[in-house]
Amino acid sequence: MSQKSTNITFHGANVTQAEREEILGQRGAVIWLTGLSASGKSTIARRAEQLLLARGVTVYVLDGDNVRFGLNKDLGFSPADRTENIRRIGEVAKLFAEACTITLTAFISPYRADRDAARAIMPAGTFIECLVEASVEVCEQRDPKGLYKKARAGQIPEFTGISAPYEAPASPELVLETATLSIDEAAQAVVDHLVKHGFIKA
Amino acid sequence: MSQKSTNITFHGANVTQAEREEILGQRGAVIWLTGLSASGKSTIARRAEQLLLARGVTVYVLDGDNVRFGLNKDLGFSPADRTENIRRIGEVAKLFAEACTITLTAFISPYRADRDAARAIMPAGTFIECLVEASVEVCEQRDPKGLYKKARAGQIPEFTGISAPYEAPASPELVLETATLSIDEAAQAVVDHLVKHGFIKA
Repeated sequence: MSQKSTNITFHGANVTQAEREEILGQRGAVIWLTGLSASGKSTIARRAEQLLLARGVTVYVLDGDNVRFGLNKDLGFSPADRTENIRRIGEVAKLFAEACTITLTAFISPYRADRDAARAIMPAGTFIECLVEASVEVCEQRDPKGLYKKARAGQIPEFTGISAPYEAPASPELVLETATLSIDEAAQAVVDHLVKHGFIKA
Repeated sequence: MSQKSTNITFHGANVTQAEREEILGQRGAVIWLTGLSASGKSTIARRAEQLLLARGVTVYVLDGDNVRFGLNKDLGFSPADRTENIRRIGEVAKLFAEACTITLTAFISPYRADRDAARAIMPAGTFIECLVEASVEVCEQRDPKGLYKKARAGQIPEFTGISAPYEAPASPELVLETATLSIDEAAQAVVDHLVKHGFIKA
């Protein structure tokens, strides 16, 4: 990605998507990671971010750390607020992708309708739904934040996989089984997918 | 900006801001354009975007076109909704700047408190308040969308500069007087400011 076009002539007052892609040498995409708590979404996203940055790719991860305490700090965990949480994340991811940034989102996003709504606002082919697959048993054994333990003790109501449903994607673009893949392998699979589909250069 | 660092070694699971800046060869900033309707905010932002892209800089403009019908489509024009509109824009701009993208926002944003709140969440020195200055008389003469005419006819309640206040910044980092500067000159002043303060390379 070290080679960038220069001496561009713009043909209108607003930059077109094609002009932006040509100059920046990458096409925007949203890698929407979905899966249970402790399935590995954020870890894979952060590792993929490093692999992409090492290639000079502009990339950004949206996850609980930078969204829940900022943009969505007014939202709680009611069904309506959860849907609004995912809606805003989808809208922000869309803006990042429009800037040609490779955008990874790492949220449980358990409801199919919410994910489908995020897909629906994106240009065709630029929403890459990625199931980070691990059974409840595996995730519960990892339990890095002790959330499953609390959920089993009834201290967290409506915990996905325990007391609230997880609706797995019917036909995700990518499936990463974290019981068998290492974090590096999973992150590399994301990069490979982006190269294969022409979002970034080989 | 065609030269990018490679063979980076990351020192933690999460990319640091310094690592990201080094790799991408630019530092994130928010250029917050504020001013009356028809003062020239969007036009300057779109032209600055072209000048920056022509240098290979990753840049994005947030304005009514991509925010009001997406992320903020649930918001109206009540005082509370206007504040929430600007709050979300500030939060999104912060995320873009964290991705090292030069981020221009083009909203009237008439209230000082709202702009100060957007400044307060940004790392010191990365929020560049830019007053796009033009008198109500000048803006009303331009009136490209016929909004002043409608406001004078009482068809738009609480129209900034006519029936609602505009609170000019007390000490903006940049002032662009569009009665005297051309669009190109104003856009170039934005680029010059970014170079001078080390956000992008000369």
